[in-house]
Amino acid sequence: MAEVPKVVIIGGGFGGLWAAKALANKPVDVTLIDRKNHHVFQPLLYQVATAVLSPGEIAQPIRRIIHRAKNVEVILGEAVDFDKENNAVILGDGARVEYDYLIVAAGARHSYFGHDEWESSAPGLKTIEDAVEIRRRVLLAFEMAERDAYLKGEHAPLNFVVVGGGPTGVELAGAIADIARQALANDFKAIDTRKARVILFEGSDRILNSFAPVLSESGRRQLEDIGVDVRLNSFVDDIAPGKVKVGEEWIDCDVVLWATGVSASSLGKKLGVETDKAGRVFVQPDLTIPGSKNVFIIGDMASLNQENGEPVPGLSPAAMQMGMLTAKNILADIKGKERKNFRYVDKGTMATIGRSKAIAEFAGMKFKGFIAWLMWLGLHVFFLIGFRNRVAVMLNWFWAYLVRERSARLITGDAEDLRDALRFMEGTESPENGPIEAKVLSETSAQNR
Amino acid sequence: MAEVPKVVIIGGGFGGLWAAKALANKPVDVTLIDRKNHHVFQPLLYQVATAVLSPGEIAQPIRRIIHRAKNVEVILGEAVDFDKENNAVILGDGARVEYDYLIVAAGARHSYFGHDEWESSAPGLKTIEDAVEIRRRVLLAFEMAERDAYLKGEHAPLNFVVVGGGPTGVELAGAIADIARQALANDFKAIDTRKARVILFEGSDRILNSFAPVLSESGRRQLEDIGVDVRLNSFVDDIAPGKVKVGEEWIDCDVVLWATGVSASSLGKKLGVETDKAGRVFVQPDLTIPGSKNVFIIGDMASLNQENGEPVPGLSPAAMQMGMLTAKNILADIKGKERKNFRYVDKGTMATIGRSKAIAEFAGMKFKGFIAWLMWLGLHVFFLIGFRNRVAVMLNWFWAYLVRERSARLITGDAEDLRDALRFMEGTESPENGPIEAKVLSETSAQNR
Repeated sequence: MAEVPKVVIIGGGFGGLWAAKALANKPVDVTLIDRKNHHVFQPLLYQVATAVLSPGEIAQPIRRIIHRAKNVEVILGEAVDFDKENNAVILGDGARVEYDYLIVAAGARHSYFGHDEWESSAPGLKTIEDAVEIRRRVLLAFEMAERDAYLKGEHAPLNFVVVGGGPTGVELAGAIADIARQALANDFKAIDTRKARVILFEGSDRILNSFAPVLSESGRRQLEDIGVDVRLNSFVDDIAPGKVKVGEEWIDCDVVLWATGVSASSLGKKLGVETDKAGRVFVQPDLTIPGSKNVFIIGDMASLNQENGEPVPGLSPAAMQMGMLTAKNILADIKGKERKNFRYVDKGTMATIGRSKAIAEFAGMKFKGFIAWLMWLGLHVFFLIGFRNRVAVMLNWFWAYLVRERSARLITGDAEDLRDALRFMEGTESPENGPIEAKVLSETSAQNR
Repeated sequence: MAEVPKVVIIGGGFGGLWAAKALANKPVDVTLIDRKNHHVFQPLLYQVATAVLSPGEIAQPIRRIIHRAKNVEVILGEAVDFDKENNAVILGDGARVEYDYLIVAAGARHSYFGHDEWESSAPGLKTIEDAVEIRRRVLLAFEMAERDAYLKGEHAPLNFVVVGGGPTGVELAGAIADIARQALANDFKAIDTRKARVILFEGSDRILNSFAPVLSESGRRQLEDIGVDVRLNSFVDDIAPGKVKVGEEWIDCDVVLWATGVSASSLGKKLGVETDKAGRVFVQPDLTIPGSKNVFIIGDMASLNQENGEPVPGLSPAAMQMGMLTAKNILADIKGKERKNFRYVDKGTMATIGRSKAIAEFAGMKFKGFIAWLMWLGLHVFFLIGFRNRVAVMLNWFWAYLVRERSARLITGDAEDLRDALRFMEGTESPENGPIEAKVLSETSAQNR
């Protein structure tokens, strides 16, 4: 079947998808493998986590996105290992997929710096499922406070903690503050949602530290304007259900969100090459691994320095550029031309802070506040994949901006989850309460569904 | 605080919500308790299950819907029992909520006729979570077939089975046939999704048997036009993973959906009054339970006959009418006026079958095909709760109709779920395969997320 070279791509994120797009309808036979059926527009994930957008608005089936590429097959599967000698990928069920060229773009997750036990108390934000779980916790916190205030006449203070002052942490903190002050304020009667506290902990001396210091400073001020308590030089040393330890102090909180640390997919290590502490593979300038000119690693899994000595940042534009260059280099091989080395082109970066608030940096120019926010808005709508999604997202944003409402305020999850959440929250608030009797609960499990 | 009578409503479905709306800003103090934070527009649930709409488009937070009602408090909680002597509802964590009037509107679920073990193999459709699970199974079935066809060169036939020929069963069967023939057809390369078979089993001698026989017949023909295999007088006697038994025949299938049987919330039994086989409470003509003039049961939990001897149907209009009448009767009590008995007003019924296909019955008039479908469309958009949702839904329908695309084709669920699904499907297809080694999987669990 394959007289043309066979290219296998692992991962349908920005890196893998852009590689596939650049190989579409070229003389190669492409198989893209992902364990999800959908590509996620990650820059807007925090909006799903904060009930502005629905999951379907920022995710599209991968096979739909590239359905016009006749030479690209998409299969749902989990790559678990490699047979490098025989040029094959091994899937979770033992199936083998052979390749002439391999592009590994399986991305990264957040790292808990050796404290994986913190994950259940402090979820991070990388997938649609993560976003829905965060949304559930944030909305549940308000519901539980309302319930306590109504039934008991009092409730514990509403505290939200975000760990990490990078773009994701800032976006989450800002969006939660916005929700508490605006979207939810009129819907709760026993509590004043505006009194919710959002605390952002950042270990270094400024937030958004990939930006110029003046923008970091503006970002901090904009966050504080909407009521976020920004704490610099603050490390979270421990996390337990319902509380975080910063320095010597334990701080009670309803929800903790983790927005720091990176841990590359463990597939890098399976290739038997050197990785950095975060599991990223040290790649050659053409993005291949040492010793295998037909195995490329791109996106958040790759560790490479730019000419100025700075590492290529773990951002979606870098992943897309890597994907496109890899595709070009494979096509160059086929034509007998020379490969090119990767050079990251920084087209600017931006971070949104809240409604009408953002910072942006383009070609040395700096923007902040409303103008930066408008730029952010336009660019994100433009880059969002799929025409229909774009229209739907604009509609939601227009609605959220105009009416200050949120359109996706669902707490989902089955009864068990909700009961666990209730138990967890009640447990942390009044530890003297015994656990709810399982017998009573199971008898009534069909109720209200 | 409460000099005015205190009304407690259990359940935020059509019955409970309409009662709350009719009591809004009246001289009563209302508490609505639901274990979900959202009201679901159930008539469109099947569209979430078939990837047309997103969950957020047919569900709204209950407290948002009635945020203007200053006398209505919404709390998230699970009613598990009653203390009827002391007029109190007991919640799952033991909290008590006292009432002067109680309205129980906790709805119903599907019943498996004593075979609850079938539920995991044949999910029903009552909640957002149910819909997302069905969507996941339907989309996964196509993905698994594509994967098998690509990796092994062959795949088991794609069979979808729907049990029950009422409106929900017909809608699901029609929508799956539509998906297979249209939305998915261009996106799969190794399989022909149009060859998927949808089989609808109905125990009686006609589908949609709450309609006139001529419309049942039209409905059956319309279903068959889009390729659904309708089998009348067919009872499903047993269900096992990947197969259903009808008569003496076991039929292999990828997905089984359960759309028959009703089982009312078990809260009815907790009230210590007589119930029918389905757990519905025999209510008085004013919808109260025998012996307690201050306890009302409405919606799918209530069993009541109309003047013509026919039971009041378990439909959303009936639940809404019951909610409104109950509110009026409580207000009548307060004013010292007489209560009214419930009389169901049949404003017509309709069922949609697929794109441009439906049947409808209004005031003795019968409609079928495109005109019935247009009526269905208009009415459902009109009744959908919340202006913004209406716009978003229309946008999605317009898109789905015009481009024959689906906008919410996400398979969600964490890695475990997907692995279980893969294992389950592979297990049924080739039982000689051993289970995937857990060790390998856990080592790579961070990958691709």
